[in-house]
Amino acid sequence: MAKSLASLEQLILELSKFPGIGEKSATRLAQFVLKNRSNFPEELARALVQVKEKIRLCSTCFAYSEADICHICNDDRRTGRSLCVVEEPSDIMKLENSGSFDGYYHVLHGTIAPLKGIGPADLKINELIQKVNQMDELEEVILALDANLEGDTTALYIAKMLEGHKIKVTRLAHGIPIGGDLDYIDQRTIGRAFVNRVEL
Amino acid sequence: MAKSLASLEQLILELSKFPGIGEKSATRLAQFVLKNRSNFPEELARALVQVKEKIRLCSTCFAYSEADICHICNDDRRTGRSLCVVEEPSDIMKLENSGSFDGYYHVLHGTIAPLKGIGPADLKINELIQKVNQMDELEEVILALDANLEGDTTALYIAKMLEGHKIKVTRLAHGIPIGGDLDYIDQRTIGRAFVNRVEL
Repeated sequence: MAKSLASLEQLILELSKFPGIGEKSATRLAQFVLKNRSNFPEELARALVQVKEKIRLCSTCFAYSEADICHICNDDRRTGRSLCVVEEPSDIMKLENSGSFDGYYHVLHGTIAPLKGIGPADLKINELIQKVNQMDELEEVILALDANLEGDTTALYIAKMLEGHKIKVTRLAHGIPIGGDLDYIDQRTIGRAFVNRVEL
Repeated sequence: MAKSLASLEQLILELSKFPGIGEKSATRLAQFVLKNRSNFPEELARALVQVKEKIRLCSTCFAYSEADICHICNDDRRTGRSLCVVEEPSDIMKLENSGSFDGYYHVLHGTIAPLKGIGPADLKINELIQKVNQMDELEEVILALDANLEGDTTALYIAKMLEGHKIKVTRLAHGIPIGGDLDYIDQRTIGRAFVNRVEL
């Protein structure tokens, strides 16, 4: 079957480029496309092309946006006193859903990772410094970076760059997740939770 | 983020139509599309449309084919003495890979399933009877259907329809899979393996 169905083979090849989709899953998805009698394949094809055409980076915070300035940067009701720095555009949605932040965002598009050849110049760090200089009311930069080596390195680098700016630089607290069972939490997290313990 | 990114939302919606892909997986796949800087989205879009445009059903066996007659039906080296009946086009590949059959195929595109409202008229059963009448050398029809209620019903129905055709109608043997551990095999399979036991 495979030999004579070049177009099916091509679709399986393309689908297996997705992360976490192996050849077997890709074959299953391709068979679903083949069997489908609605116009799902055309609609999916259109959606793929549209995403690539319409979505760009917001020119101020570098989140994904369909407009030049994203809806968060455009929202006057937010406070200009705090700026939250994240690694990826998708982090913004998670933070917004928590409902605990009403300032603006800045997306770095990665973290400093010397082993992967990613240095400060590859990230939106210069743009961050520029923005900090322009935001008159700014009081605090909150670094919402991952709690790993790259996140730590990037946080330290940014803190260093913002020294002398008279701006508070903070990081999200590390600790035990709500509902977390101590049995399943690693030693380093428990260690941090001890250091950052809070008086009741 | 979600509110302002209609095209991303649309892509997530389309991707979650795939079987086994929920909203979370679809979001992850869509983010991969967004981040991708190669022309993967366009190539996947093209592959989706091509499959729909190019692949049709072979006009003799009803397997998927890019030509009017598929490469198996077109292969003169195969024997016209046996015809293997399968449920889905994808079954052919599995049987071909086993290397144990060199006749022609016929795809039913389903099985009789009254509970799902699928009757004999919804399947390629009339076409099977017609083909059996046309194949002069035909000696045996092998039913390679699933070993479940629908498969059994369909096999019995076809056997009934082919009564008086002076053609042997057989089914693939049921039994213990090679390498199968008795501990993990269900009672019905063990029962069938007893009934179909072979003398050494």
